[in-house]
Amino acid sequence: MSEAKATAPADNVIDCKAFAAGIRARVAAQVAALKPQGLTPGLAVVLVGEDPASQVYVRNKGKLTREAGMRSEEIRLPADTPEADLIAAVETLNADPGIHGILVQMPLPGHIDEQRVLACIDPVKDVDGLSVVNAGRLVAGEDGMVPCTPLGCLMLLKDRLGDLTGKRALVLGRSLLVGKPMAQLLLAENCTVTVAHSRTRELAEECRRADILVVAVGRPEMVRGDWVKPGATVIDVGINRIPGENGKNRLVGDVCFAEAAKVAGAITPVPGGVGLMTIACLLVNTVTAACRQAGLAPPEV
Amino acid sequence: MSEAKATAPADNVIDCKAFAAGIRARVAAQVAALKPQGLTPGLAVVLVGEDPASQVYVRNKGKLTREAGMRSEEIRLPADTPEADLIAAVETLNADPGIHGILVQMPLPGHIDEQRVLACIDPVKDVDGLSVVNAGRLVAGEDGMVPCTPLGCLMLLKDRLGDLTGKRALVLGRSLLVGKPMAQLLLAENCTVTVAHSRTRELAEECRRADILVVAVGRPEMVRGDWVKPGATVIDVGINRIPGENGKNRLVGDVCFAEAAKVAGAITPVPGGVGLMTIACLLVNTVTAACRQAGLAPPEV
Repeated sequence: MSEAKATAPADNVIDCKAFAAGIRARVAAQVAALKPQGLTPGLAVVLVGEDPASQVYVRNKGKLTREAGMRSEEIRLPADTPEADLIAAVETLNADPGIHGILVQMPLPGHIDEQRVLACIDPVKDVDGLSVVNAGRLVAGEDGMVPCTPLGCLMLLKDRLGDLTGKRALVLGRSLLVGKPMAQLLLAENCTVTVAHSRTRELAEECRRADILVVAVGRPEMVRGDWVKPGATVIDVGINRIPGENGKNRLVGDVCFAEAAKVAGAITPVPGGVGLMTIACLLVNTVTAACRQAGLAPPEV
Repeated sequence: MSEAKATAPADNVIDCKAFAAGIRARVAAQVAALKPQGLTPGLAVVLVGEDPASQVYVRNKGKLTREAGMRSEEIRLPADTPEADLIAAVETLNADPGIHGILVQMPLPGHIDEQRVLACIDPVKDVDGLSVVNAGRLVAGEDGMVPCTPLGCLMLLKDRLGDLTGKRALVLGRSLLVGKPMAQLLLAENCTVTVAHSRTRELAEECRRADILVVAVGRPEMVRGDWVKPGATVIDVGINRIPGENGKNRLVGDVCFAEAAKVAGAITPVPGGVGLMTIACLLVNTVTAACRQAGLAPPEV
């Protein structure tokens, strides 16, 4: 069994790395096409404090933004920055015509109210799609910014399955970041959508009915192989660090991959799965935002 | 069978008339308690044109608002009112400290963009809960205004069933007015929520799994008796006018009442059902809005 891991992934394992690279290449081509029209999409990432994981994310976002030919700006503020100063920095970016997307890296230090900061980002520049206005636009079917992770999951699903009309989708988890927007997106694609969560009864049975199973609960390997309908498409949004056999930690998803991969028609791995889509979709959203702000039709997502 | 109709309703038929009257009485008591604090909730209803049904609704809303002890204002504008004038009227009401709730009666004449008008209502005064901001607040779990019809349905369900945690709810219909906010409300009550619609496969089977079935599709008697799980609670939001046996029209819901009432644990009738809850909830929302605007804690809904 362990030798198999060294070979090419089984063809039911979705190659998120290649798919994300393809999206980034497409974004780069779109950006190149916008430049002659005088538009260079610009993304600003605001980082407060020195959290090591956040520093890695922010560096990575900046690198990929520049690789796509876009303008990247990083605003680093000390951990003790007062909320008012952070909001003032956001408002400066709101007013900057060269910045089309603003991302405030979460989590913020405890003395800052995250929702209050998010609410200050101009909704058309809110490329993370986390503000209340963009949540409402998604429900209303209006043009807004869609949170990056569920947008990435939807792109994977449409790539794998084509038209999703009539499929039974189960979203496990009801967060504002993933579960709720994911459910709205699948509903807009004409799926029959169920949202399940920690209070759901007969959860395994609910999962087993789904043609599409999206899991975002933050509980390591909770979804077992026999929870998966044979042939279903499984999207695992979880990334959990658990103790490994050799004393080192290892990363696992919310789905027991070894079991589920034997049953699923298609499945995303962890690591190297949905996480890679998130930054790619941030670039997609930045191009969309830039086009809208310039009065141009955004490219097809 | 027909004699039975003249007697008291079977005890699985939810008495919406009595329940709505109870809510209105509670609202009246709340309003009476607010007056010594110097607060009289005020509701303004804006009617554009002469649509006969809308005139009946508006008159009825005004009457019940006054009966609850609140201030009622009716603004009537001619059918050819330019959109800008309607928006100016809304903005005058936004600025009026004696008006806490604003309802623009739909439908509006064809030359007016309904979404644009709704977007101009101050979200804290949007007692119909139809603006994008309030849709977002509902998803985000923030204090907002919840659309009256789904709020009324939820009140009926909680009154009948108590705690809804873990129940399987199916919402048939995905409108912004009913289906989508209903799904959000049931999710917030810890139901496992499925949204089904015209593109759902095996719809009857999906319905039969539900402990709670809320139907809002606008198709007369579409849901048959054998679509209902024995003992389920059925909330019929539809009101359809169909030709009756004697040449007159009659009103029916989206559920075939005669069949479903034999199976359901509880069911709302049409007419005399959910429709009665909508105005009662408009009064509830107006009191909630008035308290928030005055910096007081709104009474329990």
